[in-house]
Amino acid sequence: MELTVYLAGEIHSNWRDDIRQKAEAKQLPLLFTGPMEQHDRSDHIGEEILGPQADAIAKDEAASQINNLRTQVLLSKADVVIAYFGPKYKQWNTAMDAASAMTLGKPVILIRERDNHHALKELANKAQLVVENADQAIEALAYIFE
Amino acid sequence: MELTVYLAGEIHSNWRDDIRQKAEAKQLPLLFTGPMEQHDRSDHIGEEILGPQADAIAKDEAASQINNLRTQVLLSKADVVIAYFGPKYKQWNTAMDAASAMTLGKPVILIRERDNHHALKELANKAQLVVENADQAIEALAYIFE
Amino acid sequence: MELTVYLAGEIHSNWRDDIRQKAEAKQLPLLFTGPMEQHDRSDHIGEEILGPQADAIAKDEAASQINNLRTQVLLSKADVVIAYFGPKYKQWNTAMDAASAMTLGKPVILIRERDNHHALKELANKAQLVVENADQAIEALAYIFE
Amino acid sequence: MELTVYLAGEIHSNWRDDIRQKAEAKQLPLLFTGPMEQHDRSDHIGEEILGPQADAIAKDEAASQINNLRTQVLLSKADVVIAYFGPKYKQWNTAMDAASAMTLGKPVILIRERDNHHALKELANKAQLVVENADQAIEALAYIFE
Amino acid sequence: MELTVYLAGEIHSNWRDDIRQKAEAKQLPLLFTGPMEQHDRSDHIGEEILGPQADAIAKDEAASQINNLRTQVLLSKADVVIAYFGPKYKQWNTAMDAASAMTLGKPVILIRERDNHHALKELANKAQLVVENADQAIEALAYIFE
Amino acid sequence: MELTVYLAGEIHSNWRDDIRQKAEAKQLPLLFTGPMEQHDRSDHIGEEILGPQADAIAKDEAASQINNLRTQVLLSKADVVIAYFGPKYKQWNTAMDAASAMTLGKPVILIRERDNHHALKELANKAQLVVENADQAIEALAYIFE
Amino acid sequence: MELTVYLAGEIHSNWRDDIRQKAEAKQLPLLFTGPMEQHDRSDHIGEEILGPQADAIAKDEAASQINNLRTQVLLSKADVVIAYFGPKYKQWNTAMDAASAMTLGKPVILIRERDNHHALKELANKAQLVVENADQAIEALAYIFE
Amino acid sequence: MELTVYLAGEIHSNWRDDIRQKAEAKQLPLLFTGPMEQHDRSDHIGEEILGPQADAIAKDEAASQINNLRTQVLLSKADVVIAYFGPKYKQWNTAMDAASAMTLGKPVILIRERDNHHALKELANKAQLVVENADQAIEALAYIFE
Repeated sequence: MELTVYLAGEIHSNWRDDIRQKAEAKQLPLLFTGPMEQHDRSDHIGEEILGPQADAIAKDEAASQINNLRTQVLLSKADVVIAYFGPKYKQWNTAMDAASAMTLGKPVILIRERDNHHALKELANKAQLVVENADQAIEALAYIFE
Repeated sequence: MELTVYLAGEIHSNWRDDIRQKAEAKQLPLLFTGPMEQHDRSDHIGEEILGPQADAIAKDEAASQINNLRTQVLLSKADVVIAYFGPKYKQWNTAMDAASAMTLGKPVILIRERDNHHALKELANKAQLVVENADQAIEALAYIFE
Repeated sequence: MELTVYLAGEIHSNWRDDIRQKAEAKQLPLLFTGPMEQHDRSDHIGEEILGPQADAIAKDEAASQINNLRTQVLLSKADVVIAYFGPKYKQWNTAMDAASAMTLGKPVILIRERDNHHALKELANKAQLVVENADQAIEALAYIFE
Repeated sequence: MELTVYLAGEIHSNWRDDIRQKAEAKQLPLLFTGPMEQHDRSDHIGEEILGPQADAIAKDEAASQINNLRTQVLLSKADVVIAYFGPKYKQWNTAMDAASAMTLGKPVILIRERDNHHALKELANKAQLVVENADQAIEALAYIFE
Repeated sequence: MELTVYLAGEIHSNWRDDIRQKAEAKQLPLLFTGPMEQHDRSDHIGEEILGPQADAIAKDEAASQINNLRTQVLLSKADVVIAYFGPKYKQWNTAMDAASAMTLGKPVILIRERDNHHALKELANKAQLVVENADQAIEALAYIFE
Repeated sequence: MELTVYLAGEIHSNWRDDIRQKAEAKQLPLLFTGPMEQHDRSDHIGEEILGPQADAIAKDEAASQINNLRTQVLLSKADVVIAYFGPKYKQWNTAMDAASAMTLGKPVILIRERDNHHALKELANKAQLVVENADQAIEALAYIFE
Repeated sequence: MELTVYLAGEIHSNWRDDIRQKAEAKQLPLLFTGPMEQHDRSDHIGEEILGPQADAIAKDEAASQINNLRTQVLLSKADVVIAYFGPKYKQWNTAMDAASAMTLGKPVILIRERDNHHALKELANKAQLVVENADQAIEALAYIFE
Repeated sequence: MELTVYLAGEIHSNWRDDIRQKAEAKQLPLLFTGPMEQHDRSDHIGEEILGPQADAIAKDEAASQINNLRTQVLLSKADVVIAYFGPKYKQWNTAMDAASAMTLGKPVILIRERDNHHALKELANKAQLVVENADQAIEALAYIFE
């Protein structure tokens, strides 16, 4: 049994590499998916595919159509979602992906730094598991296969 | 036909009063619900009902259990959700409420200041309608009854 | 028991008046809803609420956000959908409303002129009932209350 | 990860070949499905299997039973739907297939010529992505695998 | 709290009167619905509304479109379904109505004569309650209000 | 807005009276439902309606058909479920009712004595709120209306 | 793409062999499932696994528990259901299986002799396709793969 | 066709080995999953991954987050659930797992000792099959493949 894990969260740091390496080190049968991780490509994908847009808002709307297409397809295939909230950024799409997964009945593992606790308290309460780092998330996934 | 509208968003400003007054001025058959609007009560409700907790995180978890109970019940009764994102605060619970509603098939009207556009672009793309102020949200609701 | 009936279809002719009058004449306990029936208002509602848009496509997108908000709310309240296809116009939104209703498990009564049969054959096959005029649709609804 | 893509739309032109060739050129792991593409076979399949029917309407009803059987099975297996609206034809079954997919939570990529924009505006608003040609649709699908 | 009870089953005998009278005698807050009980009207409703049909099969198809419209609307409003299987008739529509209700999560009370047990054993196993007469069905409904 | 609250739990003590009195004292708009509270009637209802059964197991099966009919109807109408686990008894039907409600997306308030914590830990983790007495449950419900 | 087809219907004749042979002759990628086809084993499976039962009704109830377990598992895996109604027998479980599949959104192909038309008219109206023999059913399935 | 079977129930005895050995002896194509079977690991997994907790209740809550994550993932993959209730222990999580599966439309085979019948009567009534030992459960699963 292989599980598919969607890695929702910021694309400004390399936290996903950490997750992937730890899973590989443990040889867990996990297939990781997630959003486009190249920040520039994610922001410009709308104009790259659809051509120049009227203004910054139209450009963002074009990009988000395509980013959400990717997310909707990959989220529908996911068995588990890991949602990471770092110390910076608004990360509203991360919150959206996590809540969509919860409402669809998919379990969410929330990784959050202690500082974010108060602002994340309602999301944390709805998540199946709240951890503080990638190691803990991977240990919990490994536990499913024991 | 009366519609129930859940007002998701920050409880630090009085934006809901604005919405309610404008709906009343137009005599629209709308019943508004939403989260606890007294900020202190919302933060302390866990300890007020369940008693003192071990630390700040446990206190937040206790409060969010009860805040989410309220939201889950009222969201299940809502025909439309208005989600307001102001210039400050992380507002991750607002993003969670909006995404839960969308996934349940309920239409969401997003009110966001222009400055928030980039960070909100994926949520905006999933919302049924994106506006910039309360007047526009109310006009859109009024249009349903014309 | 009162039933709510959504009247999907073109807003260029007065076919809905016919339906409503016949239901009233039979004193059927039906509440009719449907799209905005003033054609100009429906086309311009985007700019009227959201202000001037960049071009014709952006104007149409703004209007359809608000028209679809109305439809989503009213369709969710409907017990039955009547979808009328007249001899002119593409009426793709009518086909969309009918198919959405079917997929949600709501029965659809299709009113179509004979000339439209071939192009409508797949929709007709999915509809619960296919008739040729308003009288027949109303008689079928009246039969529910006998 | 392989994705299944249902190609809804007219069967009078060879637009599907274009899509398939471009996907193959990019070596994308996509499995394409769709309706019967031989127009005559699609129109006559009812009588071919069920025998002669009473009149043109009965013949169309017989054919659409079998065409819809095919569509229902293949749509249920699809991860993404591409819906193409060309300059001619009513294409109500395309609108029906697109709306069914949306209501089932499957993302739809709409390909439409600029001329069709006004008539398609409500469907376009509900689609996850709106493009103008096959290249753009394929680039968006390719983006999911990057 | 009032409950709506759909009475699925043959329309050749007056078993529904028995149910209704017993409910009334106990003053239970029950609203009963069900199929058209006039057998001739049920068989001819297709031609009465849609006009003469090509043959007996087309006539039956026309009638069943309208009978199923009625059933779909009323079943969607029902809190409980009572399905009665008498000693005669094939009653396949009764089995269909009962199974549809079960699959939708609505409880079914099956009334069956002892003689029918073997042929009904799979339906009986899926029903929430199996009784042998109207008195027992009404007592079970009364128990909900105690 | 009135809410319906299903009171799942043992019928050997009068804990429901406590809940009802406290809600009444606060004049909360709550409608309480729940299982048959007369223990003997609940155990014997199968034979009372269906007649003598072959043995104790058949008698229990007959009773549970009718008790589950009641629960299924009333649970489908509930906005919130309160599940009480007292110090005695296995109370597996209470766990079943609570889990059914959770899976249907209805919020569950768990009342459990401290002693039961270890055995209830998985249910507690899935409940929206865990409290230790009726006062706390009522305060949480009152909070929804503030 | 391989499809799974559940063959609902009587187990007194060998109609399934006919279907399977025709599918094999056409080399269609179909996996056929269905109920236990040995009539005696189907009737006695309850006592064979659970031991002697109190009476004929208890024996039937025991058998149907196990027959329905098989059906529920296999139906959940099916892409298409073929339901055959022969000239004899009540076949209420066949009607139940067909209606369950329909309500779950799975397409049903109904095979019925002409004589059964009147009694089957409501089921026929809900089926995606109605044919008169195995050849036609197989041709329709083959059409999905063309 | 391979089926996945989740084995819900106590982890204090080796009843699962019995099931697995009997399935292997019959060479049934079954993949068995279930909760962590090492009792100490199950109780301590919260602190092992998340670190020391404030008290016994917090420790239990931490463990149940991770145990429920495992169960939610594996239950979502299951085709059938076997739920075993032994003579000791409260086993409320077993009742929760069984009821969750039922509500999701997955068939449940209940294994219970005779002594537990009265307390389990409502769960037994909802289960698709009730047996008294592992042999009977395996024979019923084998029957699906005959």
